[in-house]
This record gives sequence, structure tokens and C-alpha cells, in this order.
Amino acid sequence: MTDPISKGLLPEGFRDRLPPQAEAAADLLRTLLDQVSAHGYERVSPPLVEFEDSLVTRLSSARPQDLLRFVDPLSQRTLALRPDITAQVGRIAATRMAHIARPLRLAYGGPVLRVRPAQVGPQREAMQMGAELIGSDHVDAVAELLGIALEALAAAGLADMSVDLTLPDLVGTLAAGPWPVTAPLADVQTALDGKDAAALQALGAAQYSTLIEAAGPSDSALARLKALNVSGALNTRIAGLERLVATAAPHAAVTIDPTERHGFEYQTWIGFSVFAAGVRGEVGRGGTYLVRHPGGGEETAVGFSLYVDGLVDAGLGASRRRRLFVPLGEAAHAAKLRAEGWTTVAALTDADTPTRLRCDYALANGELVKL
Amino acid sequence: MTDPISKGLLPEGFRDRLPPQAEAAADLLRTLLDQVSAHGYERVSPPLVEFEDSLVTRLSSARPQDLLRFVDPLSQRTLALRPDITAQVGRIAATRMAHIARPLRLAYGGPVLRVRPAQVGPQREAMQMGAELIGSDHVDAVAELLGIALEALAAAGLADMSVDLTLPDLVGTLAAGPWPVTAPLADVQTALDGKDAAALQALGAAQYSTLIEAAGPSDSALARLKALNVSGALNTRIAGLERLVATAAPHAAVTIDPTERHGFEYQTWIGFSVFAAGVRGEVGRGGTYLVRHPGGGEETAVGFSLYVDGLVDAGLGASRRRRLFVPLGEAAHAAKLRAEGWTTVAALTDADTPTRLRCDYALANGELVKL
Repeated sequence: MTDPISKGLLPEGFRDRLPPQAEAAADLLRTLLDQVSAHGYERVSPPLVEFEDSLVTRLSSARPQDLLRFVDPLSQRTLALRPDITAQVGRIAATRMAHIARPLRLAYGGPVLRVRPAQVGPQREAMQMGAELIGSDHVDAVAELLGIALEALAAAGLADMSVDLTLPDLVGTLAAGPWPVTAPLADVQTALDGKDAAALQALGAAQYSTLIEAAGPSDSALARLKALNVSGALNTRIAGLERLVATAAPHAAVTIDPTERHGFEYQTWIGFSVFAAGVRGEVGRGGTYLVRHPGGGEETAVGFSLYVDGLVDAGLGASRRRRLFVPLGEAAHAAKLRAEGWTTVAALTDADTPTRLRCDYALANGELVKL
Repeated sequence: MTDPISKGLLPEGFRDRLPPQAEAAADLLRTLLDQVSAHGYERVSPPLVEFEDSLVTRLSSARPQDLLRFVDPLSQRTLALRPDITAQVGRIAATRMAHIARPLRLAYGGPVLRVRPAQVGPQREAMQMGAELIGSDHVDAVAELLGIALEALAAAGLADMSVDLTLPDLVGTLAAGPWPVTAPLADVQTALDGKDAAALQALGAAQYSTLIEAAGPSDSALARLKALNVSGALNTRIAGLERLVATAAPHAAVTIDPTERHGFEYQTWIGFSVFAAGVRGEVGRGGTYLVRHPGGGEETAVGFSLYVDGLVDAGLGASRRRRLFVPLGEAAHAAKLRAEGWTTVAALTDADTPTRLRCDYALANGELVKL
């Protein structure tokens, strides 16, 4: 424990970001938030810590056992570090901003923490940013959010993106309408999760296996969904998917997996994931959901979250600054150059040379010299 | 616990930042970090959580009992939330960046958490930013840091600033040289902390009471320090103070309290605090200190930390964006306007009006109209 070398070590799942990655992470977060702000999404900043029971009640993508918890020495209550910011934004919309006219557009960015990593990779602290539109789950609202997410990622330098669309309540919609089943719906869904046609057959839900085949690139998936659109029960879903495929088209290839539920347990009619070549795991995800109000009642909403660390690890945002060496006695010129956008690095002693201070340019008698 | 209204409440000392304050906090942090980056300080981003024993070993301004601690379910080790980032930057400089030539200039910004508030006010989570120069504690390095801190705060809109300078090891320097005392030095220092001339007399350290009178505006304080500069023991300290008074002069009035120690326990020869009219508590603080290396040995350093929340609470950084209403069907024009810097807010239905969406301008047939 007191071995001096071990003092430099961090707990499993936590890391230092060094230059230039720390700068890249900050730059990427800034770019993404600027894009979202330009669409009228206003920043909110909830705290890192809440009452455990308050977080658990509103949890969406995280489970209670994923929370980092501790007893507060002041209040003796159990507090928890937030595993996700979306639920906090829902709390704010439903309480302190309940009186603001809808649609309410909010943005956020900050660290989230979990006992076990949420995304691919070993990290337990992640930088999450996102946008939420509260008061609508109409496809126009979903298209706005999906479009902004892809636009923002493109502005951050991401290329070769793909979007997966899913319809989390599709099975329920079909079962309540044209495709009634006597077996428990959860069993049908589990069979679909396993792409298990034989199990569906055994459950007396053989027609649901056509949904397994409907997964794939948007063109073929939409054609198959249209073919099984018994008595028009899927009209609005198909129109919604077509709208979102068109929204994504300038930036991303689209696949549709109509019965994919994993990670979309709290989404209502539509969920989406964003992936990109060169980025491990999801770049982000979103969809429609319900915000619960403290007095009872629910409100429709749509939003997305993007994960900055995957982008940093993929090398995005890391443009090294040109460093300009300022010799002793030339500080007066440096202020003007900083105002022009230069990064200046001042010598403090004669031992400080441009090489030592990793500079690419130097000032010499007030003139800029490339080294 | 399950009262639905209480779900909106937060633990004591934690808060939501809403619009426009959340935006103001982000803008201020960005402005301050941009100013620091322009001087060649490279961003590092340590994690929110470390091993408790590692944080305690390097603690500077926080005490172990101030830490929010918990047992990690994965490692069964005690982890703690960082109460301060300076010590983490020291750890990085002494370990992963030990091989980089000095002076090493590093910057950081992020949340810190404590059991009890560190600053004035009830908040337990605060946004800290700062800069550290590792490898020198020369007055030239201190002047660079103090100058950057004041420049950055001025760029963030802060006016009417004042700087307090202190010499944390002054008593030790005098006692080792011209003013020997037989009483324990800690007792002399305690008497000075209490500005207690009678106690100094009783300790046989009467000449130290002149230091009490030396506190005040820089002109009179420097004159008094010069008068008691027995056999030149204070030559370098007086020259240092004069240099820093000149550095601060364009931005801030300077006072000197040569024996003030509170909060400067870990500083070596110089410490400074920044205050401003309209901001509760300290705006920031800094000074010289030692970075401990894991293999043994120490390295001189100088740095400062600024606290963003006080600036936000004082109303800085909160310039409301002009919101431009985009009616149904005019989305094509909106992209061009966003590229020009406008914040656009799209109607999703006919019910969405400029008033409802709190807009100041509107698009009408592709033309901008002020409302």
C-alpha cells in the first residue's frame, strides 16, 4: 500500500488522459455541444451525485447494482454517482423545468461512472454528452435528433458511420393486433432475441419468425416489413422508418433490426444506435421514451447520448497545436501573437530551448521563424 | 423515501445548473482554459476517482476526512472522489510525464467533490480549473502563472480584482537567520496567526510583531518589510514581492500579509489568493510547492486553481443566445443560418410558435424578422 511506485497507479477502470488525448477529448466535447446548441438545445448541468433511491427510480440504461454508492457522512443517506445523465435531465424537465413550454430542448455533457463498464473496453468513467427533446415522440422530433447526432459526429470528424434502427415495442403492437399469441409475450420476445425460429414455432408464434428475416440493410428490411404489414398495422412504423432512413442517408448507411431490444428496454417506439469504422463499440444511441412526472403522469420524449471516449481512442480531435518559442526578453511580442491564435511557450532561463520545450516555431527579434 | 415529489430533491450541497447558468459555467471554463492553453499549458485529464491512500499521500489543500470515500465492489479497495485536481497533476508530472523536459506546463479543468464545502457557500461539488508549471519555483515562473490567472479572469469578464500575497515560510527563514527564537516555532506562528503581539512578547519573540504591522496594501507593506530587512535576509523575498506586485498591477490591487498561512500549508516561499468585487469567497489561489517523486526526491513547482462556480453565481458568462424560430417548411434556410452562428429552433407542429419557443427572431419566407 505504501510502496512509492504504486502511488502512481489508478484503480482498475480509471485512467489519466495525457496530452494530446486530454485536449482531443475536450475539443470533441466542445464541437459536439456546439452543434447541439446551434439547434436551440439549452445546456443543463446536473450534479455528479444524487440520492441512490432517486437515481434508481429514474434509471434507464443502468441497473441499480451498476451504481457506485456510498453513505454520505453528512446526511447518513446512501448517495450514488450518476451512471447516466439522461435520467437526470428527465428529472429536471419533470420538476424544475415542468413549467417551461414544450417541446423543451436540453443538452448536457459530463462524466458518468459505473461499477462495471457500460461500453466496450475496461473504463468505468466515461464522458457522455447528449440532447433530449421533451414533449414529443413524433417521427419529426426523432428525425431532428437523429439528424443532429449524425451532423455533430460528422462535424467532429467521424466518417463511415452506420445507424441501426429498432422498433422496441413491435412485438407488443403485433400481438395486440393482427398476430395474437397465447404464449406469454416475454417468451416470444426471448425467442426472437435468440433468433430462434424453432422456439417460436413451439410457442405457437411461428409467424413472428418472419421478423427475424426482416433484419438487415434498410432497403431489404423495409421491403420485408411491408410484405408482412398485415391489415396495415405497421403503416406508421414503416413510414417512420422510411423517414429516418432518409434523414440518416447523407451521413450513414442504415440497417434495421426490428426486434432488437438489448439496451433499448426503456425506449418506446423507436431506438437507434450509431457505429463508425475505427471506433470500438457504440458511438452513441437514442430513441423515444417516457419522462415520469413526480405528481404522476408521463410525457413523451426523444433523445440521444454520444460517448466521447471512443472517438478519442479512435484518434479523433487530436490535432497538435503549433508551439511558438518565446526567448527571454521577447515576451512583449508574444501577447500579440496569442491574440492571433498562436500558442506561445516562454523561456524562463537560458536552459529553455525550442527543442527542449517542444516548439515548432520561434520568435527571433520579433520575427516568426519556422524551426 | 417514495414520496414522488421528493424524487426531485438533491442531497445537501449538490445542485442542478439550469439555463442560462449551465451554459455560463461551460463558457467560463472554456474561456479560462483557452487563455491558459495559449501560453503552452497542455491539457491533462485525471480520473474523478483514485485509491484513497494515493490521494491522501498527495493531498494538499484537502484533509483526508474531507474525502467522499467508498469501497469499490470490484477491487474491495477504498476509493475516493478527488477533492482537488492539483495533486493529481503532480502525480502525473512525477510518474507518467517524469521523462518530459522541464519546465512542464500542464492545465486541467473538471469537477471536484468533498464531504464538506471547501469554499464559501454550501456546495460540495465544484468546478476547478488551473495550470501548473513543474520544474521551477523561480519568481519568473510565479509571475507567469499569476499573470496568466489574472489575464484569464479578465478575459472571462471579471473586473475589480484584488490579489493577496503571502510568504508562507517567512517565519522559518527569519528564525533560521537574523531572528532566532528559543520558543517552538509553531507557537510563534500560532501567535502570528492570531495577530497576538502580547503572546509573541511572552514567547520572547517580540520582534516578530513587526510582521503583524507589515500586513496591508503593497506599498506600505513593502516599505515596512524593507525597514525590518535585518542584514538583507529578506532581499530575495522583497524583490519577489515587488516583481509580483508589478505583474498584478494591470489587473488587480495587491495587498501583502506576510505571515498569512491559512490554506497555504503546502506552499513553499510564495502564495497568492485572488478576490473580486461581487464574487463570494476566493476566485482562485496559487503559489509555489513541491511535487514528490515516487522514487524519492522532490521537484519545485508553481500553479494556480480557479473556481468557476463563484463566477457563475456572480452572473458572469451568462449571455443569452438569440433564438431564431424556424417555421414548418423552412428548415432548408436554417442550416445556412446556423453556419453563420445563429441558434435555430425548429417548429415541429403548428402549435409551436416563436413565443412558445422563446425566440427573438423568426424566419419568414427565407427572411430574418426581429420579433
